[in-house]
Amino acid sequence: MIKEIFEHRSIRKYENKEIPVEVMNSILEAAARASNTGNMQVYSIVVTTDEETKEALAPAHFNQPMVKQAPAVLTFCADFNRFNKWCRQRKAEPGYDNFLSFLTAAIDAIIAAQNACLEAEAQGLGICYLGTAIYNPDKIIETLNLPKGVVPVTAVTMGYPSETPELTDRLPLSAIVHYGKYHDFDEAAIDEIYADKEAREDNKQFVEENNKETLAQVFADVRYPKANNEHFSKVLFDVLKKQGFLD
Amino acid sequence: MIKEIFEHRSIRKYENKEIPVEVMNSILEAAARASNTGNMQVYSIVVTTDEETKEALAPAHFNQPMVKQAPAVLTFCADFNRFNKWCRQRKAEPGYDNFLSFLTAAIDAIIAAQNACLEAEAQGLGICYLGTAIYNPDKIIETLNLPKGVVPVTAVTMGYPSETPELTDRLPLSAIVHYGKYHDFDEAAIDEIYADKEAREDNKQFVEENNKETLAQVFADVRYPKANNEHFSKVLFDVLKKQGFLD
Repeated sequence: MIKEIFEHRSIRKYENKEIPVEVMNSILEAAARASNTGNMQVYSIVVTTDEETKEALAPAHFNQPMVKQAPAVLTFCADFNRFNKWCRQRKAEPGYDNFLSFLTAAIDAIIAAQNACLEAEAQGLGICYLGTAIYNPDKIIETLNLPKGVVPVTAVTMGYPSETPELTDRLPLSAIVHYGKYHDFDEAAIDEIYADKEAREDNKQFVEENNKETLAQVFADVRYPKANNEHFSKVLFDVLKKQGFLD
Repeated sequence: MIKEIFEHRSIRKYENKEIPVEVMNSILEAAARASNTGNMQVYSIVVTTDEETKEALAPAHFNQPMVKQAPAVLTFCADFNRFNKWCRQRKAEPGYDNFLSFLTAAIDAIIAAQNACLEAEAQGLGICYLGTAIYNPDKIIETLNLPKGVVPVTAVTMGYPSETPELTDRLPLSAIVHYGKYHDFDEAAIDEIYADKEAREDNKQFVEENNKETLAQVFADVRYPKANNEHFSKVLFDVLKKQGFLD
């Protein structure tokens, strides 16, 4: 059993203590060992520790305070830039200016990210994923000077934890696992799957604070509303086009 | 240090031995503990162990023999189906029929997949990622009865290893890591990064067998050629549209 997997909590508050170089190296080596497509390693990791660049990154992550407070922000990118350059220097014409190539590279970047996160936790660090990387990839590209062929797909804050949050709840396995083939849910199954989550005191409070009738409305109306999703979908497509993945 | 990360090899040959239920459960629990967006858990895992369905899945993975030979094939999907159903049963109007929502769910599915893979390895199993899941998502959707809102993003074969391959090579960290911001590569840097890979006997043989001049040509012309990438990009877009992520 890998205890880091089962004991994972997102850490958003960090001690004011740098990550030693050898610790960071082991984290990056862990990322590099990740399974990847054709061993092309078409991803990259930008490790940002200086205050100025972290500050410049913060708005891209909606100014979540941990971006500035964490000793390190790691930005994981789908990256065909290096591979394309290699091809062109070796009399090969790269054909990776398309959506399949982007998604391939994005998947490889995420597998590498999760290796890095687990190894960081094994080294006593805490991490928090920043899903916001795909909301504002244009801002991150500008701040980190990402060239054509490179798109950020996730980011992670990292540092020594100064908080010890509870383990968060999860849906029962029956919500996410299907045996053999997919077995779609009827109304009773949905009720059963969400019963515990909806009965939690914190979630009831969440519904009340947001003046909503149901927890699902908090998600659909307040936290992840359609208009936002559509706006950021457009940003994302524009970025894929600009970075050369929709030619 | 998490030894499973540093000792990972893709395993393509398996013993003829089932995965015990309690072992599979711990693997699925590991997946469920993964970081995910807003704790929505918008992913699903289809666990296929029966011969008939594995056989039906094989063509989607270009008939790679391990799909039929492995005791289990796990298909990881971006999945807003369950979440959308919950919203609609709770007087909320879901707004997840867009590209941002797909990519969000895809990222969550991949983080969960890597947790599952590492925990499987900790339990003595071997795994191999099937990147082909995003080449033929239409075939997988049909075989596994995936409803609207569900798109496969990766698959993994799993079983007790009957081979012990060497650790594969990796580029030096300087190829994938950038400090502070992105520092683009000049010609000399590209030469240096790829020198060891190009000097390997297995890669030299690979170039010769394919009647090519350079290793990069083997990738760009033979293994991942532009025409294929463009064809499968179109398949992928059609699938996103059909599954309701490009409305």
